[in-house]
Amino acid sequence: MAGNTFGTLFKLTTFGESHGEALGGIIDGCPAGIRLDFDAIENEMQRRKPGQSAIVTQRKEPDSVRFLSGIFEGVTTGTPIGFVIENTNQKSKDYSHIKDTYRPSHADYTYDKKYGIRDYRGGGRSSARETASRVAAGAIAKQMLSSMKITAYVSGVGELQLQKSYAELDFSEIEKNPVRTADAPMAKEMEAYIKAIKKQGDTIGGTITCVIENVPVGLGEPVFDKLHAQLGKAMLSINAVKGFEYGSGFAGTRLRGSEHNDIFNADGTTKTNHSGGVQGGISNGETIYFDIAFKPVATIMQKQNTINSEGETVEMQGKGRHDPCVVPRAVPIVEAMAALVLADFTLLNRSSKL
Amino acid sequence: MAGNTFGTLFKLTTFGESHGEALGGIIDGCPAGIRLDFDAIENEMQRRKPGQSAIVTQRKEPDSVRFLSGIFEGVTTGTPIGFVIENTNQKSKDYSHIKDTYRPSHADYTYDKKYGIRDYRGGGRSSARETASRVAAGAIAKQMLSSMKITAYVSGVGELQLQKSYAELDFSEIEKNPVRTADAPMAKEMEAYIKAIKKQGDTIGGTITCVIENVPVGLGEPVFDKLHAQLGKAMLSINAVKGFEYGSGFAGTRLRGSEHNDIFNADGTTKTNHSGGVQGGISNGETIYFDIAFKPVATIMQKQNTINSEGETVEMQGKGRHDPCVVPRAVPIVEAMAALVLADFTLLNRSSKL
Amino acid sequence: MAGNTFGTLFKLTTFGESHGEALGGIIDGCPAGIRLDFDAIENEMQRRKPGQSAIVTQRKEPDSVRFLSGIFEGVTTGTPIGFVIENTNQKSKDYSHIKDTYRPSHADYTYDKKYGIRDYRGGGRSSARETASRVAAGAIAKQMLSSMKITAYVSGVGELQLQKSYAELDFSEIEKNPVRTADAPMAKEMEAYIKAIKKQGDTIGGTITCVIENVPVGLGEPVFDKLHAQLGKAMLSINAVKGFEYGSGFAGTRLRGSEHNDIFNADGTTKTNHSGGVQGGISNGETIYFDIAFKPVATIMQKQNTINSEGETVEMQGKGRHDPCVVPRAVPIVEAMAALVLADFTLLNRSSKL
Amino acid sequence: MAGNTFGTLFKLTTFGESHGEALGGIIDGCPAGIRLDFDAIENEMQRRKPGQSAIVTQRKEPDSVRFLSGIFEGVTTGTPIGFVIENTNQKSKDYSHIKDTYRPSHADYTYDKKYGIRDYRGGGRSSARETASRVAAGAIAKQMLSSMKITAYVSGVGELQLQKSYAELDFSEIEKNPVRTADAPMAKEMEAYIKAIKKQGDTIGGTITCVIENVPVGLGEPVFDKLHAQLGKAMLSINAVKGFEYGSGFAGTRLRGSEHNDIFNADGTTKTNHSGGVQGGISNGETIYFDIAFKPVATIMQKQNTINSEGETVEMQGKGRHDPCVVPRAVPIVEAMAALVLADFTLLNRSSKL
Repeated sequence: MAGNTFGTLFKLTTFGESHGEALGGIIDGCPAGIRLDFDAIENEMQRRKPGQSAIVTQRKEPDSVRFLSGIFEGVTTGTPIGFVIENTNQKSKDYSHIKDTYRPSHADYTYDKKYGIRDYRGGGRSSARETASRVAAGAIAKQMLSSMKITAYVSGVGELQLQKSYAELDFSEIEKNPVRTADAPMAKEMEAYIKAIKKQGDTIGGTITCVIENVPVGLGEPVFDKLHAQLGKAMLSINAVKGFEYGSGFAGTRLRGSEHNDIFNADGTTKTNHSGGVQGGISNGETIYFDIAFKPVATIMQKQNTINSEGETVEMQGKGRHDPCVVPRAVPIVEAMAALVLADFTLLNRSSKL
Repeated sequence: MAGNTFGTLFKLTTFGESHGEALGGIIDGCPAGIRLDFDAIENEMQRRKPGQSAIVTQRKEPDSVRFLSGIFEGVTTGTPIGFVIENTNQKSKDYSHIKDTYRPSHADYTYDKKYGIRDYRGGGRSSARETASRVAAGAIAKQMLSSMKITAYVSGVGELQLQKSYAELDFSEIEKNPVRTADAPMAKEMEAYIKAIKKQGDTIGGTITCVIENVPVGLGEPVFDKLHAQLGKAMLSINAVKGFEYGSGFAGTRLRGSEHNDIFNADGTTKTNHSGGVQGGISNGETIYFDIAFKPVATIMQKQNTINSEGETVEMQGKGRHDPCVVPRAVPIVEAMAALVLADFTLLNRSSKL
Repeated sequence: MAGNTFGTLFKLTTFGESHGEALGGIIDGCPAGIRLDFDAIENEMQRRKPGQSAIVTQRKEPDSVRFLSGIFEGVTTGTPIGFVIENTNQKSKDYSHIKDTYRPSHADYTYDKKYGIRDYRGGGRSSARETASRVAAGAIAKQMLSSMKITAYVSGVGELQLQKSYAELDFSEIEKNPVRTADAPMAKEMEAYIKAIKKQGDTIGGTITCVIENVPVGLGEPVFDKLHAQLGKAMLSINAVKGFEYGSGFAGTRLRGSEHNDIFNADGTTKTNHSGGVQGGISNGETIYFDIAFKPVATIMQKQNTINSEGETVEMQGKGRHDPCVVPRAVPIVEAMAALVLADFTLLNRSSKL
Repeated sequence: MAGNTFGTLFKLTTFGESHGEALGGIIDGCPAGIRLDFDAIENEMQRRKPGQSAIVTQRKEPDSVRFLSGIFEGVTTGTPIGFVIENTNQKSKDYSHIKDTYRPSHADYTYDKKYGIRDYRGGGRSSARETASRVAAGAIAKQMLSSMKITAYVSGVGELQLQKSYAELDFSEIEKNPVRTADAPMAKEMEAYIKAIKKQGDTIGGTITCVIENVPVGLGEPVFDKLHAQLGKAMLSINAVKGFEYGSGFAGTRLRGSEHNDIFNADGTTKTNHSGGVQGGISNGETIYFDIAFKPVATIMQKQNTINSEGETVEMQGKGRHDPCVVPRAVPIVEAMAALVLADFTLLNRSSKL
């Protein structure tokens, strides 16, 4: 397995299982000379952590990050930044019932078949708890990219969909509601909707939209490492993601070239932005925006039939504390992964010209 | 720039501009001992090449591949496979009018800004002609994966959408019609539709669905190199692609967990396949399927305003021979990229266990 | 900076400064199913740690490794193995005198110029303390390679050189003497010699020879990643190393082809082994052997002139507890790096043939 | 096999067998905006090509490079530079006698065992003919590094050794003699020596020294990708190389710290240069120098016993046209690999600081 590193120059490698001793990672390639704002990092961790509202899992994890290297007197030194996040609330007993059972639409079966062994406690490596490391690293990437603004928000929960485009929304609403959507009335509706689904012991999917402003022209490396291809990979690597589209996306397939083309203004900006800020895999200076689809969480508080490792049918029911809808807590994860992609391309672009 | 290589063990590196001397690539990491079927490779090239029907560009390029190394007496030797595809029909004069002009929704502007220089002939490196190398390499990957079956087809052109799921379609129809859709009546409709749009000097977008059967359990490397994340990146790296979804995709965001979970049969297969053949980033043995969104081709035969490198507004109109709709010729490209991903993960999976 | 990862499939990424909070690393790509012997890992750490004898630095560091992930019930799971080694004995005050001073033949000056900032405490990232992480990872690699036997020993200290070839030595002597040489009388001489040099406040260089037995045919990836090229890089990446030669090495340049060629026996083994177990970058099944040159430690307990960051000449003298000769403690580091190289090539070789 | 790419940002991937259709490669990551001097590239090819003097192989290969992409109107565009070198003088019949025979100290046996198949014509991929691609790419790297000066020369042939250090030699002598040594009287001696050995049907080893002047401070990436470690790997990847040492090298192991330390001048330069221009893996601005050991060519024109693939002992004698001593033609290869290393680190260093 060689899949736990992300990036070419600004690289994050992570480790850690849901119920192991600790999670963590190493950021290699962060340039020297960034004075870090540790409160800002901590704030990102808080946005992702469990137990922050009534519509997310009630598990309690402090999720603070301990930095071990690569920072001297508050400034990055150019050497690798190692960090750990302790697992303080492991409650491994909660999971003994799934030791030999493959939960439907979880990774239990595939890990077992691939590796011949599985840390079954809380999903092990396949748990979304792994994304805590991404948020920590993304928070540093964001600080490197201080001139850009990366904003994600919930744009849909089940049938409830924001109808306005990113340009029509008020982003200052996002952190005011537990759903993290950018529209106050919709936030109320979505919150009530998620609560109702939770009450039924069920879960629901949703979408997140991410918007990146003030991106310089020139980021992205043709041909395989196009900016949107790497963003797509970054998002699809987040747990529960089923789809990615940028700019006009799937809706754009129904348009004609004469409708879809973005006509230039004299200064190189464009009158429309179907392109989503990327042309030929390279940022064009317009706002980047994309949507990400998240499936409903697989662990439900209802009885389901499943099988065990002997191939016997058994009945199971989710226990413990799980999210009824993953998107509110996924907002900072999306932003973190976007920041990692942009940080990497920012460094790569330093070598484009002599 | 370091973005012209795809894969970790089964690696393709490509080179070549649309109107340079030649395109080509190097496949590094192809195992020794594969007896190649060169007719099958040539057949894939023919499926992608221009001029094959009335609804694609009428450019003429023979597009045959010349293999230079890595093959001895018809069998791969484990050493890198170098290959070239000559550009025999360059007609560079066609493009002198765009030397200093940035075409709307093309990569002219971004390449110029990123590199400070641009081979403007036919789009240079940003041309989809580059995908010829992918098809050649993918054809070899397919032969390595002879037990799997990779099938792509056009599932939508503009407003015309196939309503049946992949399981209900007859794949033997695909190569019988120039649109490469899997339904004979819809093929007629789509063909007429594309012709009408072409007549108007316009272009139209579309979608392709790809289906991979007989995939063993265990392919894909958590956590960043999940199988679907790498497939997504592969597809998003193809010219004109705007979106990717697998399994239940964006529609799955509207479902509840109780509806979406795929319940196991006793043998580890599942009763439904919302997962799209992947759990936790690892293939689960079910059929993999995904959709790809393609925007309408940007070059239209209508007048548009645009700017030149001096920032002056100029009027331009597409010249030459362009596709009115990209999806028919993109079908073999999608299959090729899927084959590259699966070949790479097949080799990587050889190291999962002791 | 992107240089803190070693390997392609069996990958080690490390972090940590000499006097930061902790050192550590992530091993990604270790196959699942290895039952680990933690005592054996601890034993390797003890061989490297300071304070183990009178001829090495008298610093005290327990140097035990805490594994955080990737191991379940004592067995590797195929997921990344994160580990930390706490810095318990930092004594940062020892180093305040070099805050603004560039020590001769240390990395102080180059780090400062490259990064514009430097963690000056104990050499920071440039300290050989970083190799503790390599030894931990190498100990796991050794267990994966249980059929091979990797043995390093001190073959020279200053003018004192072992005259026998590896085949004539008794490796059971190595751990019986603090110098870690493979000859009892020479061990006494070397020990006395190092003590005398230490008494003068000086230091001395030396050589280590490494021997790898029972290597299967086929390890190594032509053409750039030849087995000996990667071994060479691995050894040259160890602090204080100035040279690497394998098989006949520099002495072989004086031989004729008719003397140097290794004639085959009928079973594919060879009558001589000038090749050092490698042909064309690939192991040939014979014993691999190579020599590594280590310079004298730069920190001496004598007065030297040097400069500070203002370019002023200042007089300085080494303080603290330093090794008079680095080779005794470098023996396990050499073995660890060799194990990492062989583990990686063992996994890579799984993809050589169909 | 995944070993045919060298470099992280400035990357060379090569392909080609000795007697296949063509050799070649792809340079990915060369910055845009370098106006290439094609005569200089051709000149490097001529320095490496066979048949250039009486003391090298008399094979005739024009060895001119055809560039296929990545260059527009003589200037690099930032896109991958593909190139081919045709094999015009294959004479495959010369090699039929080794089809089933494993030549002593060649890679025949190891390739066969590793891959189960081997292109036996002229050594196939293991032939030093592969280095033609390195010289082509290195010639471009040299042009990117126009402010540095990279000079290699033969410093030893068998027992004949230059006694002067690099600083005492007149580099303008090097290209004046067929041996490429930097001392006119020694050149005569070495030439006569090689001729005498050739007459006996034998071969002889030698050493090359490489000197790099005007290197800026800061190149090299700790900890695994130290400048000298990557240089060492680069050199060890060249055919027939058995050893590498830089700065004081193996001789430095006999020195004391008080002798070996390079004392600073006020401007950061050093009074001596035992360090060889590198401290802690990072260039310190002093001249870089290193030695490379080459074994005697294995193909000799004398009868030797060997085995065939059936394990039978057979008698064989070298045929065809081979080098009696490899070092004269290896000089440009050494320079090329050095240039590739420095070009890569030059680009990597652009990301060291914010």
